[in-house]
Amino acid sequence: MLTDIEIADQATMEPIAKIAEKIGLSEDDIEQYGKYKAKLNLPLKKNDNKKHKLVLVTSINPTPAGEGKSTVLVGLGDALNKLNHQTIIAMREPSMGPVFGIKGGATGGGYSQVVPMEDINLHFTGDLHALTSANNTLAALVDNYIMRDNELGLDPRRIIWKRVEDVNDRALRNVVTGLGGVMQGIPRETGFDITAASELMAILCLSTDLMDLKRRVGRIVVGYTHDKVPVTVSQLGFEDAITILLKDAIKPNLVQTLDHTPTIIHGGPFANIAHGCNSVLATQAAMNLADYTVTESGFGADLGAEKFLDIKRRVLGKTPDAMVIVATVRALEYNGGAELAALKNENLPELKKGMANLNRHIKNMQRFGIPLVVAINHFVTDTDAEIKMIEDNCRALGVNVVIADAWAKGGDGTLDLAKEVVKLADQPSEFHELYTLDQTPEEKIRTIATQVYGAKDVSFSNKAKKQLRQFTEFGWNDLPVCIAKTQYSFTDDKNQLGAPEGFTFHIRELVPKLGAGFIVALAGNMMTMPGLGKTPAAVNMTIDENGTIKGLF
Amino acid sequence: MLTDIEIADQATMEPIAKIAEKIGLSEDDIEQYGKYKAKLNLPLKKNDNKKHKLVLVTSINPTPAGEGKSTVLVGLGDALNKLNHQTIIAMREPSMGPVFGIKGGATGGGYSQVVPMEDINLHFTGDLHALTSANNTLAALVDNYIMRDNELGLDPRRIIWKRVEDVNDRALRNVVTGLGGVMQGIPRETGFDITAASELMAILCLSTDLMDLKRRVGRIVVGYTHDKVPVTVSQLGFEDAITILLKDAIKPNLVQTLDHTPTIIHGGPFANIAHGCNSVLATQAAMNLADYTVTESGFGADLGAEKFLDIKRRVLGKTPDAMVIVATVRALEYNGGAELAALKNENLPELKKGMANLNRHIKNMQRFGIPLVVAINHFVTDTDAEIKMIEDNCRALGVNVVIADAWAKGGDGTLDLAKEVVKLADQPSEFHELYTLDQTPEEKIRTIATQVYGAKDVSFSNKAKKQLRQFTEFGWNDLPVCIAKTQYSFTDDKNQLGAPEGFTFHIRELVPKLGAGFIVALAGNMMTMPGLGKTPAAVNMTIDENGTIKGLF
Repeated sequence: MLTDIEIADQATMEPIAKIAEKIGLSEDDIEQYGKYKAKLNLPLKKNDNKKHKLVLVTSINPTPAGEGKSTVLVGLGDALNKLNHQTIIAMREPSMGPVFGIKGGATGGGYSQVVPMEDINLHFTGDLHALTSANNTLAALVDNYIMRDNELGLDPRRIIWKRVEDVNDRALRNVVTGLGGVMQGIPRETGFDITAASELMAILCLSTDLMDLKRRVGRIVVGYTHDKVPVTVSQLGFEDAITILLKDAIKPNLVQTLDHTPTIIHGGPFANIAHGCNSVLATQAAMNLADYTVTESGFGADLGAEKFLDIKRRVLGKTPDAMVIVATVRALEYNGGAELAALKNENLPELKKGMANLNRHIKNMQRFGIPLVVAINHFVTDTDAEIKMIEDNCRALGVNVVIADAWAKGGDGTLDLAKEVVKLADQPSEFHELYTLDQTPEEKIRTIATQVYGAKDVSFSNKAKKQLRQFTEFGWNDLPVCIAKTQYSFTDDKNQLGAPEGFTFHIRELVPKLGAGFIVALAGNMMTMPGLGKTPAAVNMTIDENGTIKGLF
Repeated sequence: MLTDIEIADQATMEPIAKIAEKIGLSEDDIEQYGKYKAKLNLPLKKNDNKKHKLVLVTSINPTPAGEGKSTVLVGLGDALNKLNHQTIIAMREPSMGPVFGIKGGATGGGYSQVVPMEDINLHFTGDLHALTSANNTLAALVDNYIMRDNELGLDPRRIIWKRVEDVNDRALRNVVTGLGGVMQGIPRETGFDITAASELMAILCLSTDLMDLKRRVGRIVVGYTHDKVPVTVSQLGFEDAITILLKDAIKPNLVQTLDHTPTIIHGGPFANIAHGCNSVLATQAAMNLADYTVTESGFGADLGAEKFLDIKRRVLGKTPDAMVIVATVRALEYNGGAELAALKNENLPELKKGMANLNRHIKNMQRFGIPLVVAINHFVTDTDAEIKMIEDNCRALGVNVVIADAWAKGGDGTLDLAKEVVKLADQPSEFHELYTLDQTPEEKIRTIATQVYGAKDVSFSNKAKKQLRQFTEFGWNDLPVCIAKTQYSFTDDKNQLGAPEGFTFHIRELVPKLGAGFIVALAGNMMTMPGLGKTPAAVNMTIDENGTIKGLF
């Protein structure tokens, strides 16, 4: 069996100018980065003669068994085009740091991949590097400000703006900077996050144009004064310089699938600490030019889809016309208690138990009123009995199940799913908002925790309670809430698989992300800077005189 | 009078594919980054029917008055092409960090500029970002290594590999990393340099191909064991991963001047802590395809040209056919003691005194045996008497003086210089090496200090003396030496202008840069991470809804 990179290497790509032409873009509408990558110039072009349908692909809670959401997404895009439904895929761009830690890319798999995969998984068009530069330039400007006149009285102990890197570097999680004497800055404790976890990444993904990005950058709270008054970037006058550094990064990137489906890859915010969706501009660019736009959200539907519908949707101004929930037999069995090593066998009792996870996601999404389908990402070890059990279970909830074989067969393995999606997207539907913006952050958090996660109650730490009062005072209550919790469970405990009930959901701390336009509610300790393992993937990589890379994926 | 950015904005650029075509490169030989930038694919193409002449542009010691070396370089390239001598310019790529600190770019000025200047001075084609990523990935791998088994026994207190950023961030000069507990790494003191000061930048600039780069990365000494034995990247097995991150950055970048002269901009190592020349591959790419290649070296001839001739030349395998020493009346008068505010006046006594600086550079370069000319970068305040004084002075040394008016007139202002350069490059000449590689580092340092700087003696600190003994033991003696000293003076004291004599030159410490392939000898405290000023340029920058930037230059 070929590996993902071997399959990708065998692909014949079309020149990106040709892919652009297919969706009505001329050479003046794009900026080429090599022959197979391009940025889309702003303002985005729009073709009014298209259907502009939007399909959101989400999944059950991720497990070590693998779900293959991106693979199904890519396969679905290819299949829709095969059926002559003109389709563009919109997806997140990968973070480079993890590539050198744990082997594996983020551009689909098998015959459902986006290419050129090496480029996309490494520097790509430099978006993450631009974000890193912009983030750290802001940090340097803030540190320079406090060692100069510091007219606003920023408290060095209360600066919340951290530096970032697109490297898995645990040694930078907690650092002391500004050491070395009077001319070397003000010593203080701080740390580095990975770039994908930065507020600037979230801002890039929620901005509707360059001036919206500048306004959002201006609203960032970098810290507090000695009197605990928040200080924003616009008070310091740095928003133009930071925006200058992001003027190209804001433009969505065009690539293609192995089957030449136009794919817009742009922005990759974390789905726990941030909202986990590709950029609004990427989705908009695709919708503007296609009959069908298929896009994804991060992790399971409890995190990614909820944030898509409660955060991104409000900026995008468009509700998905259909949704796909991806699951695998293996992952459902794992959720039901099966051991990882046993997943190749038929495990009907565990499957039955684990289906509770899928069912809660289905009910959660049905509650929003969007037509949906369950896609079973097919593995050769799946048995007829297992498939039938899932089908029977979903039918009882009024949802169809379609088998998708995107990895092995590409778009040909996803035609049934494409047909079902087209049918669903044409159905009339009515969207039901989960919460309104005029609710308090506490109410919003309670609504998400009880109605989506299935919590019985929500507890707030003393710190969080105090912050709720402060945020009211600062006038920040009308923002949506972005809950940062483990992706593995509906609860705040990663070991509680399936569909736990009767639990209390714990909010430890709130973090204002005024530039992004949401309040982060931390439930547990979120990892915002990954580390490297005992044997990092980097150790086994090779590159030869022809530039051929091995061990990258 | 228009500013540099206004002049640049008015330019009509030719598509980069057309520029490439002019020098015999097809679309398959380049990788476009937008319409006006491209990378040259490796291996480099060569046209055997060209003259392959190389011209090195250097200058007197820099002063606050400004010399305009890059401006003259660009004007000279344009002028040579105007005279139908097919010419390519090779120059360094700017560092982005300083752009947000002190207003000013590094792509020439006035009508002798390289474009697109905004792009080149900001993210360009991502080379510096790739270097930053590679450098910091290596740092993360090393820190991860010491917190794991650490089989080689690397001493956390003796790790010399620092992290880098392309940001002016003084607060990162001295930091403590790895704080936060057992799972967050090993606490240790370290710091960040600016990317241009990194060994990887020097390596990129001295590599002849991808495998040479990999070998050099493998030779980097990251630190020492508890037994003080050096540990290299290849012992840790990380050289392939780091090389993968630099596989595109190693390719030279093609842009153009305002007058459409093909310009290869690639690599920008510091000229004090490193060797200060654009990449060997950039110079090679230009020489392969042109009759005349004009290139530069950093700061004054004592630093940049010496390192070009003693370090880069050995890798490039080519000695310049002619040299240009750029000076200004203003800078010479400043060297002779004139006040900055008085430079608009005629200052003949100060000029006479300051000419000692020019004269020592002339004699130093004549010693190498390369034909040379002095170019006076013209200012409107220059008087005939001042020019005549310089001409008479240089004639006595057997060197012609040519007035260059590159800023105001572009290539048209540099035609005389071009004619002189062509004449010089056709003269027979014999190159005299300053030192041979079999001399000890101490001998090499003494040779440079006494024969180039004019020092009477060299003193070594106790630490440096100990290191000289260690390096002999480690077998590092056959490397060239890269002296890190102030650019403002021949001495190690930046206030000693002109041409000081009878001084002792102090070597504080040695730093092995085995990947780059030289031993750095530190004379004084070198700034390897710049800071931001009281009012950083960033504060006065603006960007509007059309993406128009003001205040960047």
